[in-house]
Amino acid sequence: MASAVLKVAVAGLSRCSHLTLLRTHSMTTALHQGVPGSLWKLGRLNHIAIAVPDMEKATALYRDVLGATVSDKVPLPEHGVYTVFVELGNTKLELLHPLGEKSPIAGFLQKNKSGGMHHICIEVDNINAAIADLKAKNIRTLSAEPRIGAHGKPVMFLHPKDCDGVLVELEEA
Amino acid sequence: MASAVLKVAVAGLSRCSHLTLLRTHSMTTALHQGVPGSLWKLGRLNHIAIAVPDMEKATALYRDVLGATVSDKVPLPEHGVYTVFVELGNTKLELLHPLGEKSPIAGFLQKNKSGGMHHICIEVDNINAAIADLKAKNIRTLSAEPRIGAHGKPVMFLHPKDCDGVLVELEEA
Repeated sequence: MASAVLKVAVAGLSRCSHLTLLRTHSMTTALHQGVPGSLWKLGRLNHIAIAVPDMEKATALYRDVLGATVSDKVPLPEHGVYTVFVELGNTKLELLHPLGEKSPIAGFLQKNKSGGMHHICIEVDNINAAIADLKAKNIRTLSAEPRIGAHGKPVMFLHPKDCDGVLVELEEA
Repeated sequence: MASAVLKVAVAGLSRCSHLTLLRTHSMTTALHQGVPGSLWKLGRLNHIAIAVPDMEKATALYRDVLGATVSDKVPLPEHGVYTVFVELGNTKLELLHPLGEKSPIAGFLQKNKSGGMHHICIEVDNINAAIADLKAKNIRTLSAEPRIGAHGKPVMFLHPKDCDGVLVELEEA
């Protein structure tokens, strides 16, 4: 909101002082203290993924009706989806359509016939540190280890029930 | 996707040549031709709105667990919501919690007990031109005229059934 004055979270300030501590004390001490984000940092929103029942229609909406720049449709058989990216300047939308019989978004589209927002992807600078920290804070992940995502970079999905009903993907930037 | 080469959409190219045409022909001719976005332009993603059943818990997730910078909680009685903004560098998340008995997100939270992604907000440079253009292209809006949104700027919501199941808010930047 334009009128809201954003304040620097205490977590951010403590991270700075904590990094100073790291230079004089052991890494083990730092982890033990469990300061949020001390060994990893949340970054930019990489994309919002939208599952669509008709990729051509969805692409036409963003390209021809809304006038956005869109990518070609790319099949990603190893991920069970077709993707089209919509450029919004500061971030992008990732349109997803099922590819193959075991597509991970098939169930979502059965429940949401018109399509809908499937997940958000936020970048992190160190995914292994992020996962270890989040697991220690009782945030469940959808797999034991990070996998290589659609961008060729390691990704991890966090459990929606631990994230206010939102499927959150973390991607190492 | 990192490996996808984004191409400049034909719509964008035709807009440029069309603007040249506007200088030598009448505006009426230009509108009649219906070139996408000739009189308005889609901009940045302003925010992703997430409806949450417990604002304190959701704020703590982003601030204390994920280490993001968050705003104070702001009541917006005229919009029937409390808001907290989560800064992600390039854009922000807008956490929403119902305020009052007629909150516009109460029904959404009844259907989505854990919370969930409620809408996305994309900026436009001229909301009245955008609305006229989109209505002419059979995209339905949720109100007849734009209203003043939570940021004090004119906004309009597009019908989710015309946007792949996604509630899209346009805000004049």
